[in-house]
Amino acid sequence: MTSSDADGPFCSIERAVGVLGERWSFLILRETVLYRRSRFADIQAALGIATNVLTTRLDSLVSSGLLEKQAYQEPGARARASYHPTARGESLKLVLVTLQQWGDENLPRTDGPTVLRRSSRDALPVRVGFVDDAGVSLDAGDVELLLAR
Amino acid sequence: MTSSDADGPFCSIERAVGVLGERWSFLILRETVLYRRSRFADIQAALGIATNVLTTRLDSLVSSGLLEKQAYQEPGARARASYHPTARGESLKLVLVTLQQWGDENLPRTDGPTVLRRSSRDALPVRVGFVDDAGVSLDAGDVELLLAR
Repeated sequence: MTSSDADGPFCSIERAVGVLGERWSFLILRETVLYRRSRFADIQAALGIATNVLTTRLDSLVSSGLLEKQAYQEPGARARASYHPTARGESLKLVLVTLQQWGDENLPRTDGPTVLRRSSRDALPVRVGFVDDAGVSLDAGDVELLLAR
Repeated sequence: MTSSDADGPFCSIERAVGVLGERWSFLILRETVLYRRSRFADIQAALGIATNVLTTRLDSLVSSGLLEKQAYQEPGARARASYHPTARGESLKLVLVTLQQWGDENLPRTDGPTVLRRSSRDALPVRVGFVDDAGVSLDAGDVELLLAR
């Protein structure tokens, strides 16, 4: 399962984790994808991360095609950088919410879950789960994994 | 969003990533949770990881309550260690499959997906997605996140 070629590692988990990097990358993606923070200064203030570390991690997320760098300028100030999720970055919402749900269920805080999720259509609570092609949800124990080759 | 106290970080993503650690931890969890490899030697052979690194990461996953260490002994051989997912570790199947799906969709290989998922009940293909409390699946764009406090 560690074989690799021009396409990258055979395992899609390995390819995904290779792009997502480490802890700071997940937290930067939390800020940009889930909480819609885009300005360098706002991301830095939210995370309390060193400038050089944040610059390096943001550049890496831009190179990986997860964020797009833009410039913005306020009157009388110099141009500054902001970072916006690409379509590929937006698709990480499911990954981030799955981590969020797992953390709330398995490493709970006594004051309850961090975030509540609901449907914008009917305000019903929403969770991440397995769904079959007929749109029916199923338990993890009913999901079989078949190595494709 | 970086505040923390005796309960750990306020953000459940931060708590989850704090336990999952880094790249090797994800790959060890892939082997033990998804592919049911349990013996130290088998995990090591599958990953091509150095003995000391694997020992450290496995100890950390045991400390975090994701894996349980057991001993096994084959006739004429000394006792050896094997590692088995706890209930908390088993619940990572959803997280790992979400990463797998994201990797296959966003970092595809020309020879197709790594793993096929199907329902053991009716053999229909299975994916991870958002589901509301009525069991209806919905798009990421229809999921609202509300900070609980």
